[in-house]
Formats: sequence, structure tokens, C-alpha cells
Amino acid sequence: MFRNIMLSRAVRKSLSYGNAVLAGFSGSYYCSRVCFHQTAVCKVASQAECAFRPAKVAVVTKTTRYEFEQQRYRYAGLSEEDLKQLLALKGSSYSGLLERHNIHTFNVGHIVESLQKQGIEVRVVKRGEYDEETVRWADAIISAGGDGTMLLVASKVYDKSKPVLGVNTDPERSEGHLCLPVRYTHAFSEALQKLRKGDFRWQWRQRIRMHLEGTGINPTPVDLHELQLSLQQHSKAHRISTGTQSSTPHDSPEAPHLLPVRGLNEIFIGESLSSRLKYKSFKPHLTLSLHRASYYEISIDDGPWEKQKSSGLSICTGTGSKAWSYNINKLVEQAVEDVLRIAKTKTGLEVPLNREFVESVTDTYNESLIFSPEEDKLFFSVREPIVNRVFSNSRQRGFAKKVCVRSRCWDACMVVDGGTSFEFNDGAIATISLNEEDLLRTVILD
Amino acid sequence: MFRNIMLSRAVRKSLSYGNAVLAGFSGSYYCSRVCFHQTAVCKVASQAECAFRPAKVAVVTKTTRYEFEQQRYRYAGLSEEDLKQLLALKGSSYSGLLERHNIHTFNVGHIVESLQKQGIEVRVVKRGEYDEETVRWADAIISAGGDGTMLLVASKVYDKSKPVLGVNTDPERSEGHLCLPVRYTHAFSEALQKLRKGDFRWQWRQRIRMHLEGTGINPTPVDLHELQLSLQQHSKAHRISTGTQSSTPHDSPEAPHLLPVRGLNEIFIGESLSSRLKYKSFKPHLTLSLHRASYYEISIDDGPWEKQKSSGLSICTGTGSKAWSYNINKLVEQAVEDVLRIAKTKTGLEVPLNREFVESVTDTYNESLIFSPEEDKLFFSVREPIVNRVFSNSRQRGFAKKVCVRSRCWDACMVVDGGTSFEFNDGAIATISLNEEDLLRTVILD
Repeated sequence: MFRNIMLSRAVRKSLSYGNAVLAGFSGSYYCSRVCFHQTAVCKVASQAECAFRPAKVAVVTKTTRYEFEQQRYRYAGLSEEDLKQLLALKGSSYSGLLERHNIHTFNVGHIVESLQKQGIEVRVVKRGEYDEETVRWADAIISAGGDGTMLLVASKVYDKSKPVLGVNTDPERSEGHLCLPVRYTHAFSEALQKLRKGDFRWQWRQRIRMHLEGTGINPTPVDLHELQLSLQQHSKAHRISTGTQSSTPHDSPEAPHLLPVRGLNEIFIGESLSSRLKYKSFKPHLTLSLHRASYYEISIDDGPWEKQKSSGLSICTGTGSKAWSYNINKLVEQAVEDVLRIAKTKTGLEVPLNREFVESVTDTYNESLIFSPEEDKLFFSVREPIVNRVFSNSRQRGFAKKVCVRSRCWDACMVVDGGTSFEFNDGAIATISLNEEDLLRTVILD
Repeated sequence: MFRNIMLSRAVRKSLSYGNAVLAGFSGSYYCSRVCFHQTAVCKVASQAECAFRPAKVAVVTKTTRYEFEQQRYRYAGLSEEDLKQLLALKGSSYSGLLERHNIHTFNVGHIVESLQKQGIEVRVVKRGEYDEETVRWADAIISAGGDGTMLLVASKVYDKSKPVLGVNTDPERSEGHLCLPVRYTHAFSEALQKLRKGDFRWQWRQRIRMHLEGTGINPTPVDLHELQLSLQQHSKAHRISTGTQSSTPHDSPEAPHLLPVRGLNEIFIGESLSSRLKYKSFKPHLTLSLHRASYYEISIDDGPWEKQKSSGLSICTGTGSKAWSYNINKLVEQAVEDVLRIAKTKTGLEVPLNREFVESVTDTYNESLIFSPEEDKLFFSVREPIVNRVFSNSRQRGFAKKVCVRSRCWDACMVVDGGTSFEFNDGAIATISLNEEDLLRTVILD
């Protein structure tokens, strides 16, 4: 799936982003000289051209669980002692949360100090305060947290010349796939030195864009399953958005609307669990929620439309191929062992079933799900496809340049990077694709 | 997994419930004579004892899509012509929906007529009107719809002597796993004849019960992520439910609370997509929703507690082993083929990779996921387990008599049969088990 340069087995196994491959990439660059950013070229040619010397850096910090719990009970006016007891009752450890909070805070301090020592102007911005103005001001943005914080930081960057770096501020608790290697968390000055010397590579990560069209789009959120709501509003909104108030054959169809977000990991389409109907026969704590299968039609690379029913549809980038998509598609050893055992029984062949072999087959299978963040292709996969008389499923997964989905859902959404969701109901059509303009500029440090 | 009596290959492949096995079952019965309900005994002994001759039957009908769409726009005062256009704009077919509606209505009529011809008193009850009083009144209840309607009907029946039958009123659109064989939809009098003669078998389907305890239970629904809500209410509710207002070591712990529902298919535990935070920087149609992995601890059959992170946990009965659980665990041919190919490459053995063999291995694997509705065991499976430094996963699935789950989630729920959900947040402990008292009495017709 991708060519491996300088990829040791240990690194591959640990799924480190830091050493992912540059798979033949072309485009315009920030460097003063055109260069293809293959390691050899960067190191052989003048490194000064590749040097990274920002004057202004924004450091965006995550909200720790401790901060969240404090804020949660802020209105209740709880003392620290109260909070401690409440958490204990829930089986959570106050001291544990405080410890993680302190570790994060310390690591943020280290980053800020290292930057200031280089004479760089630093702005520390909390997650909730981070906005487009911060992005405009900064020459570069550092995400200080985990992968979630990186996704947030990336979500406001549309300029492919603006670099984003991730530092994992709690390596013991956070995977940090999108962050620099863990050792730089405590040795950030070393990272800065390498960046200043040009001893690094740029990595341009592909991102997903979405166009939305059709009658399912509703700028006003209306929950059709809350029967108490005024349905006149919904009907009116539909008429306005589709122009049926004066419908003539001459009305031009609404142009597809480009959504103001980009997916760094993936787009997930599916029925929401959030449809809640309240019947008076139920006690207050029982709300009837309808978890339904998702119905939609899908067309891959302008191919024929296929009706599908499943738990949802994931479309990811190379970056996202290690995230949710990976968990949807990976196999556990227990399943692989069962398959091998059945094959052995049916053929009489001496198929090994020992732990080592099963692990080896499982690893190879799972590794094949991963591809480079820089490859300009999408990976789609159908989660828990339902196949019966009505619904077919020719391919449960595969690569594509473009995926079109037409919703046949009642209360579905399109979730971008697990953080932003759009209504995607019956009649809406989404076109999902990649565009060079949407690249996110990040850094690979050895 | 279960012994097959009179199970033809074709029947097994079609996953028909009608011929599932009675796997050694004991208990008290409705019949005047104690009998073990194996086919031989029923047919040899007096069939009159096994005859089924209800005097009063409730027929619970589903809401068709057509009826739903009509109700949805009721307040807008749309004419049928308006409705037709609106549906057409969404790509739905008004005439198609009307056709399905008419088919359903016709089939309901057939059921009612057949019952009345036998001098049986019939009450036709819409889905929304069905209640405990209906159950008390009826000698037997017929579900006229699909599997969803059967689940609803079963959800109000707690008396294991009260028979429930499902008739699939739209076989072309509905799978009807929980319903009588499709031919009885148009020949219901024939079904009635067999019931009256005793030419059938009782099937007692196991159901799941749940006990809930701990501080995560909140009788008042409070959405912690809606920061506008009064958090004093939440804090107060917590204090009341945990009795911390006067906390002394002498306070006895709250006893586990038996929930007033039973799962016929499965219990599913997971983080809800419904956490929605509204930030002022987003336009109205973008709501930040947080789709998180589910964190919990699990103990199987009083075994050691294990911390897990996944997309959720499914615990099903034999009935449910063909439903959602099946879709979570089944493999597609594409995946099986890849596993076999990798095994072939690694061993050099002549593992077949042709379509027929791959299909055969896939079918055998998937069939092993199914077990009899009458077996008194639960099947647990972890959906998309996340394995890393912190979280382990010793077994992705298996059988158990009892499963305990402790929530470490922020906004999770326990969903019963895809229809009813309970808050299940940080600190709550659920004990999931089977009990003979909860059996649902249904019918097997050949």
C-alpha cells in the first residue's frame, strides 16, 4: 500500500506517524526553493531553505479532565473537598485527575519556556478561546494536548502554508498519533533546534472536503421526532430551501454547498442515537430513543448507485486510516483463529493455529488497513453491513477519489473528525473528495 | 452450539426461527398436563392439551411510513397533493409508501377476519395505544407488523403464560425473524387451525434483566454537556440519590434497582452521539457533537474486572444472536479472503481462494454466532475494541451467565432492544443476567 523508506519493523508495529512515507508528492511549497522534500534532498541541499523560524507561535492547550470536573460543578459552589468526595463516590480519583492535570500543565510550561528562550513571541490559548484570529496572528500553531486537541487546532487552519505541530502533553494517557514523538515532550528545545536548522521534513496531510446539496439540508435545526415542535416551521424551511413556493420548471437547482470544515481523519455518516421521543407512559428517566440502521445510497468514483443498510459509513484519509476507520476494520486474533480453524477443518491442510502464527496473520491483515497521510486517495468502509433481500453490498471497503452518498435516513448526521456534525437527512446528497488546496502542513521529526 | 432436530440445511441457511431447536428445557407450563414439548410428545400425546384457543386476542399494529409522513406534516396542513410533492422532492415515492401501507392494512384485515370467523373477540390496537391494560385483557397478543413491532409487543408482556405471536404484514420489505413463516401472512386461518388443533410447539424465549446501582443513576435526565443547564440540579440530584447530604459510615448502600424492562434481543451499552454543545462561533446548523469511545469496566461471571475502551458492548440472547449482535460480529467475504490469502502467503500451503470456498468458510464462521433463543446463556461482544497501553481486551466475545459493567462514560446509555434507553454514566454499575421468570412465550409453526 505504500513504499517504506527508513521504516523499521518496530516503528511500523508501533504505528508511529513520525516515520510515515513520502509517496511521491508534488505541489508548491513554502521553501524559497522548489524541492521535493525527500529526505536525501533536504539533507544534501541547503538546509537553511528548509529551516523553520517562526517569530510568533500560538500554543493551544487542551482542557484536562480535572478542569472539566471543576467547571461542571462550578455553579453548585462545591469546595475542593466536596469535589473530591463526589468524584470518590463515582469511583473516580481526585488525586489522579489532579496529577494528570499537573503533568499537562508542567509540559505546557516547558514548551512555552523553550519557545521564549529562542526569542519567539508566544500566545497561550485555551481550547475554548482558539479562533480564526489566533490562526491569522500566528506564524505557526502548536497543539499542546492529545490527538483531539490536534484535530481541533487543524480544524481552523485552511492555509496550507501555515504549519501545525502537535506535542503530546500526557504521553502516559494519550496515544498522540498526530503528535511529535514522545521524547520531544520533555526535550522540546531539542525539537526547536532541529526545526531551526532544517533538520526535519514537511509533511502535507490530505484532508477531506464535502459538498452538500438536496432537500435534506436544513439550515435551521429541526428535530422532526419531537412531535411537540411546530411542524409548520419545518415545512416552511423546506419550501424556502428548495424554492417550491413558486415552483416552475425554470427554477435552477441549488448549487452544491461547500461545507466550511475539512476532515483530517474521517467523515462518518450514520443515524444518530439522539432521536428521542417522550411518551407520557414512560417514567422521566426512560426516553424512547430509536437506534436505527442507516439507509443510504452510495456511488464510488461516479459508479452506479447502490442502496445500502448498515451501522454507518466511514470515509477516511491516510491520517485517519489509523483512527476510527482502523478500529472499524481491524480483526481480533480470536476471529482470525476461528477463520483459520474452519479453513483447516474444511481442507485438511496443516494450517498452523499457534498463538504466534495467528498473531502474525492478524498483524499483517491489520497493517494493510493503513496508508500514508500524503496519499491522495480516500478509504471508504461500511460498518456492519446488513445484507438481505433488499440491500446488497458489493464491496464492504476500498479506495476511491470521490464518494457520493445520498441519505435515506430519518435522523442522521455527518460527523467530521468526531467533533462536528451536520444534519444529513432523507434527500440530502454529499459529495466527498480531496483537494490539494486543503492540505495541512505538519512536521516530521526523527 | 445447539442440537439440531429436524433442521434441514435450507432452513438453517435461511436463518428461520420457525425451526429452532428446543435444547433441553425445563420449567412449568401452561398446558394442563406437564409435558416437555418435544415434537414427538406433542404429536403422540393428546394434542388437545397443547391446543391454543384464546377467547380474546389483541392485534397490535405497526405505524407505516406513510402514516408517519402524514402525521409529521399534520400541523402544516398539507394536502395529499402537497405531501406527494414534498416526498418527491426528497426522492421518496408517495405512491410507493401508499402501496406498502395498503398491503399492511390488507394483511391486518385478513388476520382480524380469520380471528373473528373463529368466534374470537378481537381488539385492534395501534402501536401508540398499546399498554398494560391491553395485555391484561387479552388471552394472547398478535403483533401485526415487522420485528420492531414484535419487540414493542414483547416489551409489555411480563407474564410467561401469555402467548405472543408475530405476523409479518409486509414480507417484501420486512425480514420478520421474530414472526411466523411468511406463508401464514396470507393464510392466517391455516395458522389458527393448527393452533386450535395443537399442531404446533411452544417456544420460550430467554430475556435479559438488568439491575442498576451506583451514583451514575439519575432519575432526572440531566444533560451535563448542555452548559446552559443548571448544574445545581445535577449536583442536588446526585446528593439525593447517594444520600451524601448527611453522609455517615452508617448509611446503608442503595440496593440494586431492577429495571422495569426486559431485553428480548440485546442490551447495548455505549457513549451516545447525542452530546451536543453549542458554541457561538458556529452557525446554527453546526452543533459540536462529541462522539467518543466508550470507557467501562467489565466482569464476566464474577471474574476479575477489566478496563475496556471500545465502540460499545453488546450482550444478547439467542433471539438477539441473529440481530444486531450478528451484524457486529459477522465477517464479510472480502475480509475472510484476505485472511486466507495472508495465511497462504506465509505458509506456502495450497489454501483455496476461490469464491466458493471463501463463501463456505464465511458462512460457517457466521453461523457459529447464532444460538437457540431458549438457551439460558448470554453472548457478550465488544464492538471495535481499542487496544493500547492502557486498555486490554482479553476476550472480544464469549458466553456468560452474568455480565457486570461499570460505566466510566461521560454520556452513555444502555439501549434495550434498540427501543428504550437508560442513562448509564460514570459510576453506575449494571448487572445483566437471565431469569426463568422473564421467559416470553411464543409459538413455532412448521
